[in-house]
Amino acid sequence: MKDTASVSVSVVARLPRYYRFLCDLSKRGVERVSSKELSVVMGLTASQIRQDFNCFGGFGQQGYGYNVEQLKKELGAILGLQTEKSAVLIGAGNLGRTIATHLRFEALGFRLTAIFDSAPSLQREWIRGLPVQSAGFLREYCLQNAPEMAILCLPENQAPAVVETLLECGVNAFWNFSHYDVHTAHPDALVENVHLSDSLMTLSYKMNNSKER
Amino acid sequence: MKDTASVSVSVVARLPRYYRFLCDLSKRGVERVSSKELSVVMGLTASQIRQDFNCFGGFGQQGYGYNVEQLKKELGAILGLQTEKSAVLIGAGNLGRTIATHLRFEALGFRLTAIFDSAPSLQREWIRGLPVQSAGFLREYCLQNAPEMAILCLPENQAPAVVETLLECGVNAFWNFSHYDVHTAHPDALVENVHLSDSLMTLSYKMNNSKER
Repeated sequence: MKDTASVSVSVVARLPRYYRFLCDLSKRGVERVSSKELSVVMGLTASQIRQDFNCFGGFGQQGYGYNVEQLKKELGAILGLQTEKSAVLIGAGNLGRTIATHLRFEALGFRLTAIFDSAPSLQREWIRGLPVQSAGFLREYCLQNAPEMAILCLPENQAPAVVETLLECGVNAFWNFSHYDVHTAHPDALVENVHLSDSLMTLSYKMNNSKER
Repeated sequence: MKDTASVSVSVVARLPRYYRFLCDLSKRGVERVSSKELSVVMGLTASQIRQDFNCFGGFGQQGYGYNVEQLKKELGAILGLQTEKSAVLIGAGNLGRTIATHLRFEALGFRLTAIFDSAPSLQREWIRGLPVQSAGFLREYCLQNAPEMAILCLPENQAPAVVETLLECGVNAFWNFSHYDVHTAHPDALVENVHLSDSLMTLSYKMNNSKER
């Protein structure tokens, strides 16, 4: 594998989709895939696909296509999916509950180890086999268990203090569903923001633009 | 406004973030913003920002910055947010319920008008002031009410038949949380897929890559 530090943002942004498609192929028992077939699904040219994979040292043989299992494994390694990463969830409301139950964390190397919420009414519940703990225990838990990532499903106004606590305890990676801008306040944090409304706006754009034509 | 049909995919992909940031500025009472300030938040160069806006005819005056309200309004119009669009939700499980309650549809011009689920146990519930209706009523409802968009929160294996029904009834736009690949089966449909796991994989990549350094 080449040094991945120099890989462009747009290539990295495509990796999850490649990986997802390879998982589908693997499930269907497909053993080989050409860059042409990949290009149709990805909406890219075959040459772009080859360029993308060359960023990581290439995985294919000219005219022979890619071995699905091998490519899936290599991309999974680049994405860090084979490294176990423990995660805590902050916020057990509707959204937090759905994230906890809906996502196949294990398939991506994540292990959800604890759930916290500030609402006493939720602290009697269990989600995905884990008890919802009082947010007051967050610091102690993190100091003792050193989770590597936090999923932020709490309201925006509660996020700054919680992120501060987490950073003090050494948690530096955030899957952020709150609308708090972690990155501006803490430029060194590793953050992946989820803004579902962005996706809805993009659909609105498509609908608006298709009408005009 | 220029013809938007020729605007590149990457510019379109940035529009929701621009719009979101302008809404924040507007809420904070900020009246003017420079392309330099926008560039810091967007992680782009000021020149790139100006180029992006030039795709739509530009909105600013050299050396004077952009009027926040005006820019917000113009971008909103380009995104089609001021056009009312009715939407139905298919699937009222955990995920569908969260989408229905969590999203500020109205702010983006969408109006959720009906919710359907195939599970009889859910059909006594109300979500966001709407009764959960039997999926058996979907066709009749769509033929009578002509919704413009469907939110797919149903299991992947149930999605193909539902999408088929919706298309037959003239519903051609899909906000797709199921993992069914609508676009490959129906290339003319307007689809925006949400794959939360892609975002989690991207975070995994960042965590993996930061460790290696």
